[in-house]
Amino acid sequence: MSTKQDDELAKERLVDLAVEFYDQFAAGEVPRMNIPTRTKSNIVFDEDSKVWVYGDRTSTRSANSVRGARKLLKASYAIEFLVNQLEEDRSSTLRELYYLSESWDNEEAQFNSQDESNQLIEDLEIVSKVTREDFHMRPEESGATLMGPLELREQTRRGEREIHCQKDVGEGGYQIPNNPDTIDFLDHDIDFVLCVETGGMRDRLVENGFDTDYNCLVVHLKGQPARATRRITKRLHDELDLPVVVFTDGDPWSYRIYGSVAYGSIKSAHLSEYLATPEARFVGIQPEDIVEYDLPTDPLADSDINALESELEDPRFETDYWTEQIELQLDLEKKAEQQALAARGLDFVTETYLPDRLSTMGVL
Amino acid sequence: MSTKQDDELAKERLVDLAVEFYDQFAAGEVPRMNIPTRTKSNIVFDEDSKVWVYGDRTSTRSANSVRGARKLLKASYAIEFLVNQLEEDRSSTLRELYYLSESWDNEEAQFNSQDESNQLIEDLEIVSKVTREDFHMRPEESGATLMGPLELREQTRRGEREIHCQKDVGEGGYQIPNNPDTIDFLDHDIDFVLCVETGGMRDRLVENGFDTDYNCLVVHLKGQPARATRRITKRLHDELDLPVVVFTDGDPWSYRIYGSVAYGSIKSAHLSEYLATPEARFVGIQPEDIVEYDLPTDPLADSDINALESELEDPRFETDYWTEQIELQLDLEKKAEQQALAARGLDFVTETYLPDRLSTMGVL
Repeated sequence: MSTKQDDELAKERLVDLAVEFYDQFAAGEVPRMNIPTRTKSNIVFDEDSKVWVYGDRTSTRSANSVRGARKLLKASYAIEFLVNQLEEDRSSTLRELYYLSESWDNEEAQFNSQDESNQLIEDLEIVSKVTREDFHMRPEESGATLMGPLELREQTRRGEREIHCQKDVGEGGYQIPNNPDTIDFLDHDIDFVLCVETGGMRDRLVENGFDTDYNCLVVHLKGQPARATRRITKRLHDELDLPVVVFTDGDPWSYRIYGSVAYGSIKSAHLSEYLATPEARFVGIQPEDIVEYDLPTDPLADSDINALESELEDPRFETDYWTEQIELQLDLEKKAEQQALAARGLDFVTETYLPDRLSTMGVL
Repeated sequence: MSTKQDDELAKERLVDLAVEFYDQFAAGEVPRMNIPTRTKSNIVFDEDSKVWVYGDRTSTRSANSVRGARKLLKASYAIEFLVNQLEEDRSSTLRELYYLSESWDNEEAQFNSQDESNQLIEDLEIVSKVTREDFHMRPEESGATLMGPLELREQTRRGEREIHCQKDVGEGGYQIPNNPDTIDFLDHDIDFVLCVETGGMRDRLVENGFDTDYNCLVVHLKGQPARATRRITKRLHDELDLPVVVFTDGDPWSYRIYGSVAYGSIKSAHLSEYLATPEARFVGIQPEDIVEYDLPTDPLADSDINALESELEDPRFETDYWTEQIELQLDLEKKAEQQALAARGLDFVTETYLPDRLSTMGVL
């Protein structure tokens, strides 16, 4: 359920790929597909868009081996399936694609594992510069929700729906659809967007009325956020010109959650401009909060220490702020969860912690 | 957000427990609390309610040791917290309770781990015969959704909301609140309730319009269903007199998902009458489907085989149907996912598989 233009563009780009194979054949060349090398050492900071994208190094998928030829055969079948899917205005999941390949007439074109079909779809995204959502490929699970003073219109298969994300929803909030580009923002009274890692904290903020008291839109990340959640966060920032803050636990895994909202991931660096919100700021539990608020903590596990050390080497965390906080945490040997703020009472987070942090940051 | 009477009853029962400790002290007895033994060997089938409940064996928590006395002290503090929470019409998560105990004046009453506070809340549920939801304890994550011809009214902290679960929601559906007893069913056009394990299949059914074509309410289980999901399923069955079917993958873990909807779990046998829908029937992938429809499969792992063998011993699966299917599966040494039906095309599940199965079962 994306717009007709998006569908047309996606189809065109896919067909172009097939045409390219055809032309290579016709010219007597061995068919091939060039894609950027997807490793940490090949991501670079793009000064214009302020996100991390793939650099210049590329790898080639070529039909000069049986293995390589089989890959391009699978790509051709997948392209045909996707073009048909777009023409029929249908959609499917990555898992369905994997199973569906069993019905393809050429056994050599069938996928051996879902890793293989997932990887191919990513390759096609990169080469065609069209997102998976525009191929009408759905994720297995989406599931995040919004709550706050936002009125939107969603195009669904059953017609348009106008929904206010406080007045027209239950306590559970508005469920973000798999493809949030089916949403138009109609009206809002939002001062800032607050992305929250855990369900427990999301419910605390909603129960305490933080969204109404501070005119904020609460986005539930549900741990590592789905693409749909990152996409709508970026659109809220770009289209409505809203500040975005990310509220997580205070451990290396949660810093990665913040990182995936702000900078994107290595795996999806080709999508950074579509998914990442580089202006998003961190309002999660900081190692210095553990000291300042005397929060209940857990000791760092070995895996936490390794993750922190790897973040110190990560170009996306190479700022004074992150270096200082991560070094402090390695020193303290402790981590704390966002719900640990409850040790100071159930209202501490909404009456003291967030207002203080957000004022200091200039968001309030 | 439950009804005022529920809140009063919960408060009363909690205070009764405290009064009991007091009376035991006053009578010169060592304070104690009796609770049913929570093991597989102490669950029995209740012929009246058709669910598995705890049997007659009990264990005693007594203050005749320092360890036991500390348990009852913690119980007393937790009871005071819960009564206050009910009086203030607030709520909290299990995790918040754990952290909050750090603010209690008596250090001996503070919890050492979340396991300890979780266990205490379960004990209090069992002894008081009031559910956690009525203590206003929220789960960490709920998150399942409804889609279908159902109009409901939800009481929220921000007032009442009337929502039609097709016309007033986006493609994501209606998000079930943490406590579904805040919902009243207003009107419906549902012929049966279809609980679905995976998000991919839930989206397939909605995209194919199965809920409108067959007047069914699609409940997304999201794997092992949350209490809120099981509770609303039971209420739909009991209050609207609707058949319930459960559509899962074909492996031992998914049979347990069906089992938890239909029979409840050993851990929550005290809640079976509140959460379990014993009339729910299985429409998931059956081992015989693997043969009949020649579905793509994966080999059984050792852990799958162990789980199947343990199900053969489980009183809740002691029927001819389950014995036959499980033995067939051990024989085939294969399992299949619900999305494997896509190997027969994306419409096979809604045009052939479900209509055939549901007709045979007499649901259609």
